[in-house]
Amino acid sequence: MRQRDAMIARLRSTGDLWEPAPGLVGLRGETLARFEQIEALVTDLCASETADNWRIPQALPLEVLERSGYFASFPQWLTLASHLSDDAVALERIARSERPARDAAREAAPASAALSPAVCYHVYGALAGTVIDAPKIVTAQGCCWRHEGSRFEPLARGWAFIMREIVCIGSEADCTAFRERGLAIARRLADALGLFGAIAEAEDPFFAPTARGRAILQRLRSLKHEMMLLIGDGETTAAASFNLHECFFGEAFGIRLPDGQPAHSACIAFGLERWLLASLMAYPIGTKRRARERRMLGARA
Amino acid sequence: MRQRDAMIARLRSTGDLWEPAPGLVGLRGETLARFEQIEALVTDLCASETADNWRIPQALPLEVLERSGYFASFPQWLTLASHLSDDAVALERIARSERPARDAAREAAPASAALSPAVCYHVYGALAGTVIDAPKIVTAQGCCWRHEGSRFEPLARGWAFIMREIVCIGSEADCTAFRERGLAIARRLADALGLFGAIAEAEDPFFAPTARGRAILQRLRSLKHEMMLLIGDGETTAAASFNLHECFFGEAFGIRLPDGQPAHSACIAFGLERWLLASLMAYPIGTKRRARERRMLGARA
Repeated sequence: MRQRDAMIARLRSTGDLWEPAPGLVGLRGETLARFEQIEALVTDLCASETADNWRIPQALPLEVLERSGYFASFPQWLTLASHLSDDAVALERIARSERPARDAAREAAPASAALSPAVCYHVYGALAGTVIDAPKIVTAQGCCWRHEGSRFEPLARGWAFIMREIVCIGSEADCTAFRERGLAIARRLADALGLFGAIAEAEDPFFAPTARGRAILQRLRSLKHEMMLLIGDGETTAAASFNLHECFFGEAFGIRLPDGQPAHSACIAFGLERWLLASLMAYPIGTKRRARERRMLGARA
Repeated sequence: MRQRDAMIARLRSTGDLWEPAPGLVGLRGETLARFEQIEALVTDLCASETADNWRIPQALPLEVLERSGYFASFPQWLTLASHLSDDAVALERIARSERPARDAAREAAPASAALSPAVCYHVYGALAGTVIDAPKIVTAQGCCWRHEGSRFEPLARGWAFIMREIVCIGSEADCTAFRERGLAIARRLADALGLFGAIAEAEDPFFAPTARGRAILQRLRSLKHEMMLLIGDGETTAAASFNLHECFFGEAFGIRLPDGQPAHSACIAFGLERWLLASLMAYPIGTKRRARERRMLGARA
């Protein structure tokens, strides 16, 4: 059994973690307290960017994703929100059914919104058609959804998970400098948690038939980096990513610089459950709290 | 124009509030700062119940709602999470479509989960089949979804909104006493925010063809109360509810007391956007901050 499977099994047995369905996780007890510590740390560190704080809506119009080229890039992940038909007869049929869950699942009306696959699409959508006079830096935390078939694994890969992002829209130089500051924020976070984070070049898992070329460009131009954290058995997880988009979103959403050129953008994203997983592997719940805090404080100093 | 429509129009014009689609709201600036103050106050007041703190999963198995009788009670509200078929050919057809948003909306696989209509269903689902030795009190905050057709109104009635709940499972006496404490928590919250809250008996909008009887029972037995806050033009909104369920969920989920009888349950729910709306109507953004704080502090003392 992998070390992290043994740890997750312990959390399940104490009730600290439960999974009512694959990819959906609930947290309680000391494990939740640890998650909330990490969440507060990430929030504070991202606020150091003097970023504009947003609370994003819980879903996106499908048109925003269409404009982002999302369907060609990551159709495999897309998760939709739909509701039942407003038709009274159809509602009553489900209400009176002997197996309403099965019938409701089949009878949903066409989806009218997408559950956010990332926080930053909301920012491009909200700033569509605007001119950026000075670099615009936004931070937001939200629940993101990526359907990963049968690859779900508690804390490492969820259908729904919490993401904190900082997004920069401005000139190419603004975005490059922003990414450097983002790397420094992630290093401060790893230090504060007593974790070792290694930066690696990376590429997104673009849908091969229609977007494989974008992954090749990402590699060639070093557009994507990730911070990898140890999660036992010598394996790592990408717990933060540092992304330059060049003028991809500026063009797609008509976000321009004062000279009329499309703006560049960049984003830094933290996957909070993965930070929790790495922290739990390094400092298991139930280790003597005093000793753990000494180690964490030592690493921070 | 109603007073609250004028206020919402001001927030839209300053960019403090935006609505990418009906029922979905984003917040920024001072309005978001106010929301976060309220969120922190509600969290602190609910922690005073020495409740067990949970972070609930972002969706529920449909079977948990079936077990709760949800489909007969509120089918009109149900919101489902679905994803595209895992079939590579179907994904590629959408990825290559000229109108992928439209096609994706139609091609989702049958839904496999429900977006939470309330926080407390997660608690009954997680405690199914257990015996309650001492009253179990849980608190959690989550995003809840209720599709309200064309009745959406920013902050007053969202498709998605934030709910903080405290849930009690125990004997009938435990639940009755808990509801009294919940009323006191809501009064402290209203005082701290300098708002006037009126308690009224209420009933849920049960789906008439199949569950109208439950609304009549709620009224007869005084099972549901709400705290109504003023939102302009002499109108009010239900910003908190105080609900006794008798042994409805105990029976449905096999949650029992030590003597083998089904447990009783009760829940207190706070709709955070509605508290924000009432606060914004009473203390508009842009009023001189010092004067506003004096009024709010005066009310709290």
